Amino acid sequence: MKIVKTLLELRSARATFTGSLGLVPTMGYLHRGHLSLVQSARAENEFVAASIFVNPAQFESVDDLDDYPRDLERDLDLLDTHNVDLVWAPDRSEMYPHGYQTYVTVNQLTSGLEGGRRPGHMRGVTTIVSKLLIAFRPDRAYFGQKDAQQVCVVRRLVADLGFPVEVVTCPTVRESDGLALSSRNARLSVDQRQASTVLFRALSAASVAFAEGQRDGDKLCGLMSDVVATEPLADARYIAITEVETLQDLRQLPEQVLASLAVCIGQVVLIDNMVLGET
Amino acid sequence: MKIVKTLLELRSARATFTGSLGLVPTMGYLHRGHLSLVQSARAENEFVAASIFVNPAQFESVDDLDDYPRDLERDLDLLDTHNVDLVWAPDRSEMYPHGYQTYVTVNQLTSGLEGGRRPGHMRGVTTIVSKLLIAFRPDRAYFGQKDAQQVCVVRRLVADLGFPVEVVTCPTVRESDGLALSSRNARLSVDQRQASTVLFRALSAASVAFAEGQRDGDKLCGLMSDVVATEPLADARYIAITEVETLQDLRQLPEQVLASLAVCIGQVVLIDNMVLGET
Repeated sequence: MKIVKTLLELRSARATFTGSLGLVPTMGYLHRGHLSLVQSARAENEFVAASIFVNPAQFESVDDLDDYPRDLERDLDLLDTHNVDLVWAPDRSEMYPHGYQTYVTVNQLTSGLEGGRRPGHMRGVTTIVSKLLIAFRPDRAYFGQKDAQQVCVVRRLVADLGFPVEVVTCPTVRESDGLALSSRNARLSVDQRQASTVLFRALSAASVAFAEGQRDGDKLCGLMSDVVATEPLADARYIAITEVETLQDLRQLPEQVLASLAVCIGQVVLIDNMVLGET
Repeated sequence: MKIVKTLLELRSARATFTGSLGLVPTMGYLHRGHLSLVQSARAENEFVAASIFVNPAQFESVDDLDDYPRDLERDLDLLDTHNVDLVWAPDRSEMYPHGYQTYVTVNQLTSGLEGGRRPGHMRGVTTIVSKLLIAFRPDRAYFGQKDAQQVCVVRRLVADLGFPVEVVTCPTVRESDGLALSSRNARLSVDQRQASTVLFRALSAASVAFAEGQRDGDKLCGLMSDVVATEPLADARYIAITEVETLQDLRQLPEQVLASLAVCIGQVVLIDNMVLGET
């Protein structure tokens, strides 16, 4: 596995790949969710690359950025074990050189859910993803369904700017009690970790009701809200039932909708989602 | 010369190029300025491509967009004569598909000069240039010094997003009386055409004073302003002496500065600039 720091090194390494390339962009502190992306990339491409970069542009607060867990050595071991060919782990100054002032924005799709609550977050995501697509020129790029809005926004970005890449969405990987894997889970105390299953329980309640024919968006949101309210350590930041691709709010629901929520547990914000009516 | 309409056709045609590619992005209605870009591209690359697209995103008013001159057939003849290999002339719906909402912005550099007077204009430029660089993957891209701010902004965009392309700036091509070539010149009446030399006369006055040692930015701007004021048909929109790369206003001047101005002549806005102290 080749590990590079600079963009020039990356370009040289990229130029040696003669077949299809799958890219797994990450912020490091890898868990089984990331590794499932790597496995999909490995199965579908001749070459697999990953990036490790905790992107300051997508954090709204310096505290949140500082608190984000990091373990580069372990990450590199894991990627090596999973037969990744190339890893780009640039410094901040390599990614955002002196005088940096260029940003990529996706407008409407970023106005709700996480984007609506975290000013600048989605601009950070779309800018870094654009930079990674330009740098790696992958044939396929892999994202987890856990960040549902991110996936929608990246799909729109790719279509709008005309990147010749297939965006592949991989299913959310969960702990046995339903908690979606996230690097942020490492910051939960034992009590908070127990409380954190409330996201999955809320989504499951909405899923059951949807399967039983409930098509009133407000009622489904109310159901999720009631579940979150049973957990004293949890505080709902948003609870939404939206259209799957446009992420617009819905009242009368079609056969497939996206149920998503963000919950604060102590200082940690957890997000999760389910596509209801998925076959 | 291959002429393509869709992005997919463009990608197929691009894939057949085995050597270096020079790109000349244009909005059509080609003049000798554009053709000098093509000639530079031809001399420096194995393959030469051009784009013709009147980009609605960089016009602030529908009238200005509608009034922009077009002559696709003549443009294609000229490009063919100049040994261009590939032309992309997409429809608007190909460039901005249904639901389009992704934009590339360069912040500080676009706040003054043309960018400061035309809200959205520079965002239109940076978005379309990004899309062209993604679509063509050129080794070199050619721009005219006449649009000095555009060149600065594109250079920043390329550095920031990490496009593997060399930005080549070609000198402004002028009529024998000094008027910088522009597709907009076609819209000038005979009287206005005569008045339009005022831009070059103002820049020349600043250039002479600078060569004679004048290093007070305000005085140089005053000189240019005086020249423009002698022309009843002309109305200065802005007159500026700025740093060459950052485009920031200057009082005490270094050895090289950018003198630029925009002048309204009737309904037509003309811009021009000179780098003073250029060796």
